[in-house]
Amino acid sequence: MQQTLVPLFPTAENVALATDLYELTMAAGYFHAKRTEWACFELFVRDLPPERSYLVAAGLEQAVHYLRHVRFTDAAIRWLRSLPVLKHVRPQFFDYLGRFRFRGDLDAVPEGTIVFAGEPLLRVTAPLIEAQVAETYLLTTINFQTLVATKAARIVGAARGRAVVDFGSRRAHGPQAGLLAARASYIGGCAGTSNALAGQQLGIPVFGTQAHSWVMAFDDEQEAFEAYLDVFPEHTTLLLDSYDTVEAARKAAALGSRVSGVRLDSGDLAALSRRVRRILDDAGMRRTRILASGDLNEHVIASLHRRRAAIDAFGVGTELATSRDAPALGGVYKLVEQQVGGRWVPRLKLSAGKETYPGRKQVYRVADGHGRFRRDVIALASEEQRGSALLVPVMRRGRLVGPLPALSDARSRAAEEIRRLPARFRRLEAPAHYPVQYSRRLRALRERTLKEIGHGRAGEKP
Amino acid sequence: MQQTLVPLFPTAENVALATDLYELTMAAGYFHAKRTEWACFELFVRDLPPERSYLVAAGLEQAVHYLRHVRFTDAAIRWLRSLPVLKHVRPQFFDYLGRFRFRGDLDAVPEGTIVFAGEPLLRVTAPLIEAQVAETYLLTTINFQTLVATKAARIVGAARGRAVVDFGSRRAHGPQAGLLAARASYIGGCAGTSNALAGQQLGIPVFGTQAHSWVMAFDDEQEAFEAYLDVFPEHTTLLLDSYDTVEAARKAAALGSRVSGVRLDSGDLAALSRRVRRILDDAGMRRTRILASGDLNEHVIASLHRRRAAIDAFGVGTELATSRDAPALGGVYKLVEQQVGGRWVPRLKLSAGKETYPGRKQVYRVADGHGRFRRDVIALASEEQRGSALLVPVMRRGRLVGPLPALSDARSRAAEEIRRLPARFRRLEAPAHYPVQYSRRLRALRERTLKEIGHGRAGEKP
Repeated sequence: MQQTLVPLFPTAENVALATDLYELTMAAGYFHAKRTEWACFELFVRDLPPERSYLVAAGLEQAVHYLRHVRFTDAAIRWLRSLPVLKHVRPQFFDYLGRFRFRGDLDAVPEGTIVFAGEPLLRVTAPLIEAQVAETYLLTTINFQTLVATKAARIVGAARGRAVVDFGSRRAHGPQAGLLAARASYIGGCAGTSNALAGQQLGIPVFGTQAHSWVMAFDDEQEAFEAYLDVFPEHTTLLLDSYDTVEAARKAAALGSRVSGVRLDSGDLAALSRRVRRILDDAGMRRTRILASGDLNEHVIASLHRRRAAIDAFGVGTELATSRDAPALGGVYKLVEQQVGGRWVPRLKLSAGKETYPGRKQVYRVADGHGRFRRDVIALASEEQRGSALLVPVMRRGRLVGPLPALSDARSRAAEEIRRLPARFRRLEAPAHYPVQYSRRLRALRERTLKEIGHGRAGEKP
Repeated sequence: MQQTLVPLFPTAENVALATDLYELTMAAGYFHAKRTEWACFELFVRDLPPERSYLVAAGLEQAVHYLRHVRFTDAAIRWLRSLPVLKHVRPQFFDYLGRFRFRGDLDAVPEGTIVFAGEPLLRVTAPLIEAQVAETYLLTTINFQTLVATKAARIVGAARGRAVVDFGSRRAHGPQAGLLAARASYIGGCAGTSNALAGQQLGIPVFGTQAHSWVMAFDDEQEAFEAYLDVFPEHTTLLLDSYDTVEAARKAAALGSRVSGVRLDSGDLAALSRRVRRILDDAGMRRTRILASGDLNEHVIASLHRRRAAIDAFGVGTELATSRDAPALGGVYKLVEQQVGGRWVPRLKLSAGKETYPGRKQVYRVADGHGRFRRDVIALASEEQRGSALLVPVMRRGRLVGPLPALSDARSRAAEEIRRLPARFRRLEAPAHYPVQYSRRLRALRERTLKEIGHGRAGEKP
């Protein structure tokens, strides 16, 4: 049987089509209407998900990879030409797609930066078509990694210094989601991941223990444990709950301190961990670590701490890799400014409950004398404000202005920024609302633009 | 700047590492322990997510693609050799990985089949290492597509014959998740997707309207609408809510029946749709369709129907592509039988709350005289039972036994099976629990295996 199966991998070659079709029909429309002037779009999160009081920005490297590599291959163009919706489009449009490159500017907050609702994570300034076409891909890339980095930060916070490892690949939304989740959760503070590809491609520390199937594959548990120790004499973590956890702990204890760790995966983890700790300690195995896994999240981990669990590290899967309690981030990408006849004019959207602020923006973060974050101001990019500006230039005319920070720098930045965020804003439950203001000039511009729309000429004369 | 950025795309070349590291350390362990005999693993969902009363199986084609293409490249092997955990592994293991192929058997329920908790979606029978290594990839592939196909079936059911289109790419968990979600939601009954790559790679019907940015990019809305109609004279769907929906509907009405559709994306969709319908009808535009979008799910759609909304099609994004209310499926992959000294012996797991049934299984579905499903029986694969057997041979000794069904067949199968499922089992809220029994022989085998574990020799003499 030589049937061709479709793997459904996005690749650098087909990534231009990994988007909503309307980005491409609008591109055809703009081309047709000869809209060659530049426009400015901003990506921001309208409202934070429930329980979240801040976001950890992540995904920029993959977004930049897209902007540098997006090309319409001959196959992609042939397919687009075959669509009935594009049948009246001038053939020159397809020639244009063949030459399509992103030649615009990108400003963004570095990965690992803490951001809040309404604050642009990135800003694209480019010829209208190029800025429009990037929408869906930028959103899916930034939305997901930011979602997971944020969830990771909450879980890592709850673990209070104990290591948290991403175990989520099997429940992630496909193979790539597992890989992206591993990256994002590392930025959010995880110590590593079980995902081997993330280890190979990104250098993230990888961790692996053993599965129930290993234990079940031997006639008895003791034999299974000994066989593992035989192959991995310096890195043996034994899974204790295949049959009876306490019984298994005694078998592990019989093997002595060469056992570097044990894993608990079910049952009352707090009580079991204390009991297992005692068994190990009594055998002189004080350095053997206890790892816990099994439907963990930040609340369960906090409760394990309250119950004085003797757990040294947590493996967190489903809840982390899917951000289970809040599995989507409402990032949006909105036109905020546009060239008309060579002049830049502000734009906004008025849809019920979805109003936006016009004009290209900068976010200023104001800290107190001890470096702790006090408040943010969203201002026009053109005005001066106190505090540190969060958005920095990343690309100019399609080229990187400098190297992106390394993944480890993004992780350090997140840790540092979370440390500087006062504790009341990062409580697990009912966190305080961090103050974010809009500058006076930005509010005035919005009023002015609204008035002009009232006259049916949205932002024509700013 | 020529910095190399990491795109994080799983590909046919690196897919062998898109897994949990422990699959590979266990592989090394089995190799070391000379465990060359065959084993049998089954993939099933332990408990259905809240509100779900059935699952629509999906993802098999990508799972089979993996099994056919999984290879350890030189780069992957070099990376594995560099890991401290594998440093005491015999070098022959890495030679073995270089020759690694999946040469086992695969049985599975065809995509689009309705399944219930505890029922194997697939069964892998292969040399122990090959069956073990596939675990994580099979789980992530089947878990996610099954999750989304199931969610789609619920939403499509609520839409009662109106078209549902997947709009979820921007909120999906990365570019590949958007693509996989488009495929799975098509199997679950969606009419198509906004994802262009899914259209190109799978032939799924693609749909695109226009974004707010199109409307905002023109000085006024009327001009924006006319410009769109000019490029897409036969496929113009106008987005009405950028400023004022009713006002925009009047502008659309002024353009006459060349406008093939309008889209509502915010506000009170039931009331607005009726009002817009009247405006269009009064202009003689009875064939102009009304599409609604904006945070829709099965419950919102059912409520729109109850409120007599005049909506012809629904675009569903976040809720569908992330299965927002239940964003993870607890699929597991468990060793159920194993060769020991050439004889097959059953295996099971006893972990608290996670007990499994030993032995390789078949699922029989019993229908009444009208073809409606009445109950399922999970039995040993070796026994005869009434009803239709759900698992069919897919691969033997690493080769496909025949072509996989086309995507459209999977979609038809799902529609047909949902039709045959009595209505009480597919109510949106508080659905009845479909009866699934374990056969007497299977229960007896479990008792026997449990007893033998009691004697410390799990399943040695079945």
